[in-house]
Amino acid sequence: MLHVGINGYGTIGKRVADAVREQPDMTVHGVAKTSPDHVAESAVAAGYPLYVAGGSGVGEFETAGIAVEGTVDDMVAESDVVVDATPGGVGEQNRPLYEDHDTPALFQGAEDASVAETSFNARANYAEAIGEEYVRVVSCNTTGLSRLLAPLYETYGVERARATLVRRGGDPDQYCRGPINDILPDPVSLPSHHGPDVQTVFPDLSIHTAGLKVPATLMHVHSLNISLQGDPTTEAVRDLLADEDRIFLVPEGLGLDGPGALKEFARDAGRPRGDIWENCVWAESIHVEDGELSLFQGIHQESDVVPENVDALRAVAELADAEESMATTNETLGMGI
Amino acid sequence: MLHVGINGYGTIGKRVADAVREQPDMTVHGVAKTSPDHVAESAVAAGYPLYVAGGSGVGEFETAGIAVEGTVDDMVAESDVVVDATPGGVGEQNRPLYEDHDTPALFQGAEDASVAETSFNARANYAEAIGEEYVRVVSCNTTGLSRLLAPLYETYGVERARATLVRRGGDPDQYCRGPINDILPDPVSLPSHHGPDVQTVFPDLSIHTAGLKVPATLMHVHSLNISLQGDPTTEAVRDLLADEDRIFLVPEGLGLDGPGALKEFARDAGRPRGDIWENCVWAESIHVEDGELSLFQGIHQESDVVPENVDALRAVAELADAEESMATTNETLGMGI
Repeated sequence: MLHVGINGYGTIGKRVADAVREQPDMTVHGVAKTSPDHVAESAVAAGYPLYVAGGSGVGEFETAGIAVEGTVDDMVAESDVVVDATPGGVGEQNRPLYEDHDTPALFQGAEDASVAETSFNARANYAEAIGEEYVRVVSCNTTGLSRLLAPLYETYGVERARATLVRRGGDPDQYCRGPINDILPDPVSLPSHHGPDVQTVFPDLSIHTAGLKVPATLMHVHSLNISLQGDPTTEAVRDLLADEDRIFLVPEGLGLDGPGALKEFARDAGRPRGDIWENCVWAESIHVEDGELSLFQGIHQESDVVPENVDALRAVAELADAEESMATTNETLGMGI
Repeated sequence: MLHVGINGYGTIGKRVADAVREQPDMTVHGVAKTSPDHVAESAVAAGYPLYVAGGSGVGEFETAGIAVEGTVDDMVAESDVVVDATPGGVGEQNRPLYEDHDTPALFQGAEDASVAETSFNARANYAEAIGEEYVRVVSCNTTGLSRLLAPLYETYGVERARATLVRRGGDPDQYCRGPINDILPDPVSLPSHHGPDVQTVFPDLSIHTAGLKVPATLMHVHSLNISLQGDPTTEAVRDLLADEDRIFLVPEGLGLDGPGALKEFARDAGRPRGDIWENCVWAESIHVEDGELSLFQGIHQESDVVPENVDALRAVAELADAEESMATTNETLGMGI
């Protein structure tokens, strides 16, 4: 049984904890938090041993009436692997802590790629992370792009990929973010940094990306234009993507017109927190003409990396190969809506 | 002096009326409206002779205390040219009225292209409209794309243009439109109808477009990817676009990061209604690599077609050639911020 410590219990950390708990070969050893707030209370209520990270100290948690097991140092020392789910940039500062305890660690996509030896997407390059000590699970957008590109790359070859990423301004709980009533090129300089991030997974891929931010919180939406080396039919590409476990081919005619309807659908399906781990590719949008593929996909920024973190844990701990790990993750989480 | 009747006094009609009034060679003969509402009162307050269109009848206007000159039939009969600025689809129904009176007419881009002999953009194909009886001024998005493509097409040749149009959900006064907190592929099927509309101006251009709708009201933002036949430098393309009177090259470093800031800038500059007639191309976004140009541009959906309507009037009435007309329009409106 792999003992997993989770450092950071925010948007990603709490979801990874819940996903790890569902696995037959892993257990949540504990979660570490900096502040004794309502999220810390949720962690205790969920039954996770709580460790204290950062400045607050154990005393502050005890004053707040929140029981703790120890410090983040204790958690790292006691865990087989740590998932670092702290805010972007903090993971890099934490790496020496993991090194001190000889504890392998996963980092998240907001870290610079140099934080780890390998940038990881289960569908695209699981094998590269097997037995590695430090692995970075790529960001929500890069995960979404990698999952889509992997089968296209393998089946037809990709001459070039061009993507406009219409990004949500913030998550639903991030009330202090914007924009309001605006459409912001972000970053305004082109191509954006998202393309090079995809190249940490597909080093030889020609990919250019453009990013914008809009007043929405539910999902990102990607507009993709991909020149394939082959010239398949629209139906062949649709069938290829339909076969992917982590791609949900949004059917026509059911009114699943956008992120709002998709999230409602996921909530009705009983998904935890209404999460959608899969890429949502609108079937109707898939169009191939002279080897040029266009499509729209929705990416649930809060959750699509969650199954990837679970798989990365198995790769680092050498518990399973890609196929076996993804099958277990998919089955335990209930992938497929 | 060209007597111009304006049928419809909404977003476009009222702006075209104000622009026509500024021209040395035209006068507003009158404007026609269907309802005796606050907009009708504004038209009278602005000094425009008011004519009654549609169902309400002269009596309703008189009951509301709004003085009218006659019916839309009278206006069409008395005018040299009519600008039809009625809602999409109504223009087509109005065409027999203009034919009955032998009055040439302009239609707007929400009409099907078949409503007129020529689809018009001043920069791209002014000459084709000279002396024509019925001309359609293309939509805000198509106007924005045509203005950008014309100099590229002439100077380098365009192998293919691919565009994602991140569209505002509605204008600021359209409170009943959406989306709220969503990012909607619209239309979800690809490529969208916007590309074929650009082909009404550039028949031989390979252009594919993808459209989305987001919760914003101020401007559309286009993400463009254009394969040129030549291979200019980034600076050469920037200089080329800077030379275009109806392109505003948004400078770096002034905080003009998006439509909100651009509109504020236009209001501070004293623009009527805060309008921005020009394409707003972010200079920093322009990037050319191996003949492939990427950039972002903002399009003010309420006003970019206004100077085009003025020029189309001159073309139809054979008052001037393209260069002379555009120069007069630009100078009288105060183009260039």
